[in-house]
Amino acid sequence: MAFVQDFTWKHGVTVKELVDKYGAIGYQSVELARAKDSIVKMKKASSKIFLTFTSNMVTSGLRGFFAQLIKLGMADVIVTTAGAIEEDIMKAMGERFPIGTFSMDDVELHERGDNRVGNLVITNESYCQLESKLLPMLDKIYSKQKRLTVSELLKEIGLQLEDEHSILYQAARHNVPIFCPGITDGSLGFHLFMYQQKHDDFIIDVVKDFKKIVLCTSHDDTKAVIALGGSISKHHAILACLLNGGARYAVYMTTARATSGSMSGATTNEAKSWGKVQDDSDVATVIGDVTITFPIAMIAALEELQAEGLIDG
Amino acid sequence: MAFVQDFTWKHGVTVKELVDKYGAIGYQSVELARAKDSIVKMKKASSKIFLTFTSNMVTSGLRGFFAQLIKLGMADVIVTTAGAIEEDIMKAMGERFPIGTFSMDDVELHERGDNRVGNLVITNESYCQLESKLLPMLDKIYSKQKRLTVSELLKEIGLQLEDEHSILYQAARHNVPIFCPGITDGSLGFHLFMYQQKHDDFIIDVVKDFKKIVLCTSHDDTKAVIALGGSISKHHAILACLLNGGARYAVYMTTARATSGSMSGATTNEAKSWGKVQDDSDVATVIGDVTITFPIAMIAALEELQAEGLIDG
Amino acid sequence: MAFVQDFTWKHGVTVKELVDKYGAIGYQSVELARAKDSIVKMKKASSKIFLTFTSNMVTSGLRGFFAQLIKLGMADVIVTTAGAIEEDIMKAMGERFPIGTFSMDDVELHERGDNRVGNLVITNESYCQLESKLLPMLDKIYSKQKRLTVSELLKEIGLQLEDEHSILYQAARHNVPIFCPGITDGSLGFHLFMYQQKHDDFIIDVVKDFKKIVLCTSHDDTKAVIALGGSISKHHAILACLLNGGARYAVYMTTARATSGSMSGATTNEAKSWGKVQDDSDVATVIGDVTITFPIAMIAALEELQAEGLIDG
Amino acid sequence: MAFVQDFTWKHGVTVKELVDKYGAIGYQSVELARAKDSIVKMKKASSKIFLTFTSNMVTSGLRGFFAQLIKLGMADVIVTTAGAIEEDIMKAMGERFPIGTFSMDDVELHERGDNRVGNLVITNESYCQLESKLLPMLDKIYSKQKRLTVSELLKEIGLQLEDEHSILYQAARHNVPIFCPGITDGSLGFHLFMYQQKHDDFIIDVVKDFKKIVLCTSHDDTKAVIALGGSISKHHAILACLLNGGARYAVYMTTARATSGSMSGATTNEAKSWGKVQDDSDVATVIGDVTITFPIAMIAALEELQAEGLIDG
Repeated sequence: MAFVQDFTWKHGVTVKELVDKYGAIGYQSVELARAKDSIVKMKKASSKIFLTFTSNMVTSGLRGFFAQLIKLGMADVIVTTAGAIEEDIMKAMGERFPIGTFSMDDVELHERGDNRVGNLVITNESYCQLESKLLPMLDKIYSKQKRLTVSELLKEIGLQLEDEHSILYQAARHNVPIFCPGITDGSLGFHLFMYQQKHDDFIIDVVKDFKKIVLCTSHDDTKAVIALGGSISKHHAILACLLNGGARYAVYMTTARATSGSMSGATTNEAKSWGKVQDDSDVATVIGDVTITFPIAMIAALEELQAEGLIDG
Repeated sequence: MAFVQDFTWKHGVTVKELVDKYGAIGYQSVELARAKDSIVKMKKASSKIFLTFTSNMVTSGLRGFFAQLIKLGMADVIVTTAGAIEEDIMKAMGERFPIGTFSMDDVELHERGDNRVGNLVITNESYCQLESKLLPMLDKIYSKQKRLTVSELLKEIGLQLEDEHSILYQAARHNVPIFCPGITDGSLGFHLFMYQQKHDDFIIDVVKDFKKIVLCTSHDDTKAVIALGGSISKHHAILACLLNGGARYAVYMTTARATSGSMSGATTNEAKSWGKVQDDSDVATVIGDVTITFPIAMIAALEELQAEGLIDG
Repeated sequence: MAFVQDFTWKHGVTVKELVDKYGAIGYQSVELARAKDSIVKMKKASSKIFLTFTSNMVTSGLRGFFAQLIKLGMADVIVTTAGAIEEDIMKAMGERFPIGTFSMDDVELHERGDNRVGNLVITNESYCQLESKLLPMLDKIYSKQKRLTVSELLKEIGLQLEDEHSILYQAARHNVPIFCPGITDGSLGFHLFMYQQKHDDFIIDVVKDFKKIVLCTSHDDTKAVIALGGSISKHHAILACLLNGGARYAVYMTTARATSGSMSGATTNEAKSWGKVQDDSDVATVIGDVTITFPIAMIAALEELQAEGLIDG
Repeated sequence: MAFVQDFTWKHGVTVKELVDKYGAIGYQSVELARAKDSIVKMKKASSKIFLTFTSNMVTSGLRGFFAQLIKLGMADVIVTTAGAIEEDIMKAMGERFPIGTFSMDDVELHERGDNRVGNLVITNESYCQLESKLLPMLDKIYSKQKRLTVSELLKEIGLQLEDEHSILYQAARHNVPIFCPGITDGSLGFHLFMYQQKHDDFIIDVVKDFKKIVLCTSHDDTKAVIALGGSISKHHAILACLLNGGARYAVYMTTARATSGSMSGATTNEAKSWGKVQDDSDVATVIGDVTITFPIAMIAALEELQAEGLIDG
């Protein structure tokens, strides 16, 4: 049996050492250490890893980390939302996102064309830049293919980007499909609609993309899910796993709670009732802000995997 | 200036009387009374009302209330998720959803084919029933039209249902469009994929549906949003409003918090920075479980509107 | 087995009728209906009911409801915090508490002597009034007795108040002891300290008050806890029950969560491991803002009890 | 203006380096970096630092860290709850606290004498040990002094302990007063009550202890608060600061939210309206589980302070 250990600081402590101590502190720090263990195990088992996140995380600096994880082979399938795609492209074009506070005056922000996302800001200028760059990309893509799945569209866009911190760039170059089942839910939806106005045979085939996500792994593959935040991206990944026999490993990191029956707050335990994760699977649910919890848990896992020669550093 | 009033019980108190008292209790009860006021005002101003909700609310008994609200003219546009559609259809077929507890044994539930949603259950049998009924419906629809938007698909399904407590049934009969930007994110996605396997020209056109949601109101319309829970359904409705100049009234009811920058937790204030709601709009954010807060606020609004002859009772 | 029922509105619906419907809606509405059931059962079983609340609830209009519940015999023991005592006295003196918003400018408020509690305000003037009235009261009490327990002090104060909406007033007149284990944690603490400066033999005996709360019920009594919010008031009541064999009925209503191991977020299930509530007890935990959830649940319980002649209305 | 930076992992990253990156990620990671800055500044300004925490944190492994912080001169005043005192003493006697899960069976736990605190356990045996050791200590203390303040009692106990990881041990040896305004709210209360049964002149003088906390700093001192979790411990510290002109630095780390008007969830902004923190003070509120957030922020602060020779390592 494990017991609580008194935690003390030593000079120069690394993130890996801290997470090792977390395992004996208590509450969510213990769950975070368990999440690290699950991540290590899923990689050692050569699982197909579904990594899901929401757009606010791509607004944040986690975006570069997601791109790095794809490069390191820590994600085999990405599922995310329309906003995440847009902001990854904006950043790949050099747009920068100011850091503010949660209590900025929203009417003032609106007057100067700043859009608040928590304590971060996206300027109207960034949305204009997106529009100006997206249209020539769509022209190029349409000239090759008129009916595409979302993942095909995103791969084509990724191939046209030049930014190694870009999720789309890395995914396109490492054959990691990016699924985005709600692709129209953003300014991207508006640009696709405008494009279709001029080209009625331009079709985004979401149904065929569902086939792709189902077939991108098989019943025989060991499957794993790392779901950051809730929303359609989390649900879509675990649904794809469910249709192939369920995930063997699952890590959920979120601020949503289980008490209202929402998908976003559903725990890894609830997932067992559905067969979304297998009954004897290795799972962890960590409650907390992903910008804090995910880097810690993943860094510790990466250090451990690197020490065993399972990833390059 | 308004002051806190001591609350006391009187025998036979109605929901309407309670909400009137809420306005002088404090904290979220005050916000709930403000939400009621916003709902009354949006209706009096003949606003186009976007009502959004997530699938867990359709799992719950709120489903019949949503259908009633459509019938009463309290919703001009519906935005929701795939699970909500599926469960509305299941219930219209007579499937029943057991009530359990949050702490049921998930492995046991899985063994007997029960899927947990908080303290509610959906049986595997209900999913089988859905499949058996959906295929003939799709055949009928496909025979008429091969390329449809999601809202067209849902209207066609709604017309084939016979249950006045059904959201799709009422929406189809009252010309209220139902948008579902992530239509493939559920077993519905699986059935559409299987159908497309046999009919490659069967296309769900999500891009054209984005056009429809943008054009279903205009800049000149007064627009209002009642967003229950977060997710893609909330965002999609306020995005559609934003593209037409923003909502004049907005009520958000959710358990998600603003502190992690998520869309689900974003407040009506944050929405002002985007122009999602207008700077001088009438807004309220109520934190709490929607199964408790929404019936109270909406019932009080309905009583008030009925007293003024603005809805039938 | 119970099943989810479609909820629909009917004109003139009472709070009691709504709560009956809640039992078949889902998530927290189901838990709230269970809380109502527990309250009815605890009263029918002639339990000794511990009612606990925090100071912010006395800042709010729930204060008058608590006083009414004491009068109706729905609370046999009160446990609360220093701020609650202070604000009950202020209100009994006629002080009024303005209603504001959560986003008021705190620096501006400070400049004009307004202290924010969420979306409510307590003015510096109210604190001054408290001071001017409290000193003569203490003189009167000290002249009778120099070493008092907290509950004795609060009874003496209650007897000097003239406001039927006052908790202290009703408790003093109905022999309901008010325990406040952290009595010095507020401006009350400051006034007691100033008083003791002049009268060194003035002693508030918290240890003897612990004896009183332990002996105010016995092992043979059926005990029940209604804990609103968390904090020392919740813990103190269930500790007193634990020392007498645990509570048979327990209703927790709070916004705090179980995930961080805090007392405030601890569930009625966790309480079973301690024997704080009995293994086969009738318990309910409702997550949500108490200003919304408590009036609904308690009103429905009162209507039911009144119908059976168990309380006066 | 600061901008979001893409975060990427490098082998061997230290906690200090991670927190530096947090400042440019977003949401709560940015707030955590600000909290670190506030801690560094409060120490550089030679502030009198009030460190407050709740009992669940002493159940956890943070207990040893709190002791170390006292030794390092990072806390001048401690405010906490009765449970924290008890568990510090139990651990100083060698009692060990098992690590479990949040979903353990509470009835089973009760049957074998295990008491759950989130995913940790305190055994009945530990409570028995506490009792057996506490009585001789009280005898020794009573023989010297019959009327004590809480902080005097805790110092006397601390002097009798022999465990450098003990909070009471370090506080007693470094003249750091420990205030516990709700001292009777725990098994400690029961033991004090039993002791007073035999010695009626044994008095715990909480009123005099309030004088001590008010006078342990002055208006002229620069004051700072690090409040972990909410409850009476948080409120008591900021109340003491308020009475001396308010804190210049304040860091709140909690999972409680501001939306219900509770003290536990009150933000550093709300504190400004009260003068609890000064209008131009340096403040940060970090939402998240303290077992994760506090070690990270404090370690980074310690590394920075050590580099400047302001603490020993």
